[in-house]
Amino acid sequence: MLANDRASAALGIEVDDHGPGWARARMVVREDMVNGHDTAHGGLVFALADTAFACACNGWGPVTVAAGAEIAFLAPARLGDELVAVASVRARRGRTGIYDVTVTRGDEVIAEFRGRSAEVRG
Amino acid sequence: MLANDRASAALGIEVDDHGPGWARARMVVREDMVNGHDTAHGGLVFALADTAFACACNGWGPVTVAAGAEIAFLAPARLGDELVAVASVRARRGRTGIYDVTVTRGDEVIAEFRGRSAEVRG
Amino acid sequence: MLANDRASAALGIEVDDHGPGWARARMVVREDMVNGHDTAHGGLVFALADTAFACACNGWGPVTVAAGAEIAFLAPARLGDELVAVASVRARRGRTGIYDVTVTRGDEVIAEFRGRSAEVRG
Amino acid sequence: MLANDRASAALGIEVDDHGPGWARARMVVREDMVNGHDTAHGGLVFALADTAFACACNGWGPVTVAAGAEIAFLAPARLGDELVAVASVRARRGRTGIYDVTVTRGDEVIAEFRGRSAEVRG
Repeated sequence: MLANDRASAALGIEVDDHGPGWARARMVVREDMVNGHDTAHGGLVFALADTAFACACNGWGPVTVAAGAEIAFLAPARLGDELVAVASVRARRGRTGIYDVTVTRGDEVIAEFRGRSAEVRG
Repeated sequence: MLANDRASAALGIEVDDHGPGWARARMVVREDMVNGHDTAHGGLVFALADTAFACACNGWGPVTVAAGAEIAFLAPARLGDELVAVASVRARRGRTGIYDVTVTRGDEVIAEFRGRSAEVRG
Repeated sequence: MLANDRASAALGIEVDDHGPGWARARMVVREDMVNGHDTAHGGLVFALADTAFACACNGWGPVTVAAGAEIAFLAPARLGDELVAVASVRARRGRTGIYDVTVTRGDEVIAEFRGRSAEVRG
Repeated sequence: MLANDRASAALGIEVDDHGPGWARARMVVREDMVNGHDTAHGGLVFALADTAFACACNGWGPVTVAAGAEIAFLAPARLGDELVAVASVRARRGRTGIYDVTVTRGDEVIAEFRGRSAEVRG
């Protein structure tokens, strides 16, 4: 799946490692990723977390998509920062899953993301 | 603010119109925006909504940032789709605000986003 | 459905009116509803909103349950306050729905709730 | 704080143990807690999680309130079920905190809750 993910590639997102229910991805904040406050656009921090989430929830086998997510932005990321997103499954029930993704810069937490996944039928 | 938003510019996001508490923005799903399921990467749909949200919550005057957001993905967007995001304030209390953003493709709702804003002091 | 809702009855929740996709309910904050900060327990404000949501999303016919919800607490409610919750559908797609519920005390917004519904099969 | 929490007492919620950033609470689903689907009212499952969250976020010392929360209902709880909620801090930044609460019935996850806390000034 990731091999075909042109969006993540265009954002320079690299998935270091992944397995059933977990993944780790990274992204450097480029000049074309900052917003009017001179900090990383929240949508791109979300995109990094979402890519890690997608790898984690598809790691079990069946095709699985994001039904939704909630993100809390705890600190701004800045030009040149390397952000790391670690995703892990929290709960699965039927075709539904809950995954937590923490985005950090070194020891500092930048954002906390919680994704809801839905397995696609057939 | 928007004039300096290189991230939104790089994504081709155009803000049609905006005012205190509301904004409308649009984005076309490009080849570098689709993911492994051949649909728009959720992070980029989020980014469109987030840009509309930022314009709406900064329209009152004081610098305001996103504290967090929740998004529900109701239908996939595909290559070439033009997506429109309409943001409007729902409630404000002290330095906190709640904004709703609906992302559509024609008459169809693609995603519902709810953002939480925080006015920056000083 | 509401006729059998002992939980809402025990909380003194009254549903004024409802229809397909909307409902209005009210609740008075009693002595057994306040918490350690001497304000209404957030769970009971949530419960009021959730009851209005349940009436709105079941108003179309098919049995529908809450898959989840997000709530922002904007102001505390106090002993004796009468709270009113107004629910309205925001989007429906397949068996999924998004509903907004605003909880007010007079003109003041106490909480903004967004519920996600799922229609039960068969 | 908990000693004065009449709402939690009225719901029969017992806090087994708690400390800075964590807490464990339990509640039995009573006849006056079930809704029209004959399952526990979602608001009361939320209330149990919210009480555990309040104990966890107030365990550091400063008075702290809930700014908001998101809950996913994964399985229904039924009359007579004993539910256990375990809260733990996920991240803290300035006056803001993120806490996760898992509600279980035996080995089964009933709900996943994520709370956002705000420390009160002064």
